[in-house]
Amino acid sequence: MTIMKLLSERPGELLPLSFFTERFGAAKSTISEDLALVKEALEADGSGLLRTHPGAAGGVQYWPLPSREEEQETLLELCRLLSDPSRILPGGFVYMTDLINHPIWSARIGGIMAARFIDAAPDAVLTVETKGIPLALMVARALGLPMVVARREGRVTEGPSVTLHYISGSTRRIHTMTVGLRTLQRGSRVLVVDDFMKAGATARAMVDVAGEMGATVVGVGVFVATAEPGRKQVERYVSLLTLEQVDEVARTVRVVPADRLSKE
Amino acid sequence: MTIMKLLSERPGELLPLSFFTERFGAAKSTISEDLALVKEALEADGSGLLRTHPGAAGGVQYWPLPSREEEQETLLELCRLLSDPSRILPGGFVYMTDLINHPIWSARIGGIMAARFIDAAPDAVLTVETKGIPLALMVARALGLPMVVARREGRVTEGPSVTLHYISGSTRRIHTMTVGLRTLQRGSRVLVVDDFMKAGATARAMVDVAGEMGATVVGVGVFVATAEPGRKQVERYVSLLTLEQVDEVARTVRVVPADRLSKE
Repeated sequence: MTIMKLLSERPGELLPLSFFTERFGAAKSTISEDLALVKEALEADGSGLLRTHPGAAGGVQYWPLPSREEEQETLLELCRLLSDPSRILPGGFVYMTDLINHPIWSARIGGIMAARFIDAAPDAVLTVETKGIPLALMVARALGLPMVVARREGRVTEGPSVTLHYISGSTRRIHTMTVGLRTLQRGSRVLVVDDFMKAGATARAMVDVAGEMGATVVGVGVFVATAEPGRKQVERYVSLLTLEQVDEVARTVRVVPADRLSKE
Repeated sequence: MTIMKLLSERPGELLPLSFFTERFGAAKSTISEDLALVKEALEADGSGLLRTHPGAAGGVQYWPLPSREEEQETLLELCRLLSDPSRILPGGFVYMTDLINHPIWSARIGGIMAARFIDAAPDAVLTVETKGIPLALMVARALGLPMVVARREGRVTEGPSVTLHYISGSTRRIHTMTVGLRTLQRGSRVLVVDDFMKAGATARAMVDVAGEMGATVVGVGVFVATAEPGRKQVERYVSLLTLEQVDEVARTVRVVPADRLSKE
């Protein structure tokens, strides 16, 4: 019972067998058997991944990833919610802050995104303030990784930083992005996460700033990408949903699950 | 096994017995017995809270709250980490972004904060961009509540908003805070959460903007508050840690667990 609780509370962490034997006062053999049962139950359920690493420096790692079925159910429900005309904002934007900022939804979306990128083996999740943070944090949580937040301007509380200027795809205005030097280590394998992508200029800037800091970008994932423009400023990315169409006058909006393969 | 997993994935949600009977194809009596075992295990462990609501509209609610022991261990470890002189920034600030942005830490801090306020029965968690978001999201996650993010300026993606101006306690400059009308309902019971409090002007502004929106503030919680000034702009607040002293020249910093009772 409590093994599953401990695992759920420590996603992505490599937990040595001794971690469990100490807490439960049980023998390693007993713990190993219990872990095997957990693994079996997770596999039967199709949700959650438990990996066993043998040897003295080994242990187990658990990731709370959704099953295919849960993923499909969540994405379809999100499409239904986002296709509500009352969400249409001036300029053809779609209001989605309520979903992004509700931890039940951001955790589910984060879990789906984490499943898409776990094999890319990132070691940090990079996003940009403000709306990207809840999703990025939940992706980072599911993978057990630190989150790095790029900011719009430097702050004394972040220490020295790397700053980059870029031109937004839609307004053609100059924007600034700054990342604290302490927050991202050289050689990191970075997963870039954001809530929304139109032209992709912001994602491109995150890829570029990561490069300037000596990190490698191993993936770009966004919650919703617009169908148009079809060509984004990042070549390879994964989006979970596609905003196909918004009509401010006719009051219609259509959000559909993205075919990830077509974008890669 | 899987009951604990389901509960862990849905903190704060009221789950009817039928939710479990459908997933496991088991009788209500079996599920009730299993839930009683989970409850017993949680109580023995001292961490996590399971509440049973009888009746047709009833079910169970689970909150992943830390035990007293886990709480003390976490807070002492955080004090140790934050008292490292390499964290001192110009102006006597202490670098803590790495801790706030790491989901393992923000989840632990969020769980501790959630435990302090669960009896105040909030129905939304309000914070301000940017550094407050990871903690507020994890508090909201532990309590199963939506998070509301006050922004520094209005954005088209947030829709119509309420805007308030206030004077910061330290720099005496005018700041702006804006909250989307859609994000916070009238009559909400709001828990205000932030990462850091010095004079308390930002927390005060959040209390005020919530009031303007017809919401009631049921608590104010911050991760770290400075010892000076002792009198803050909010009368009642809970801080987990106290930044007692920072000396930029001598390179010393001292962070200690806050005595919450002395502040209430």
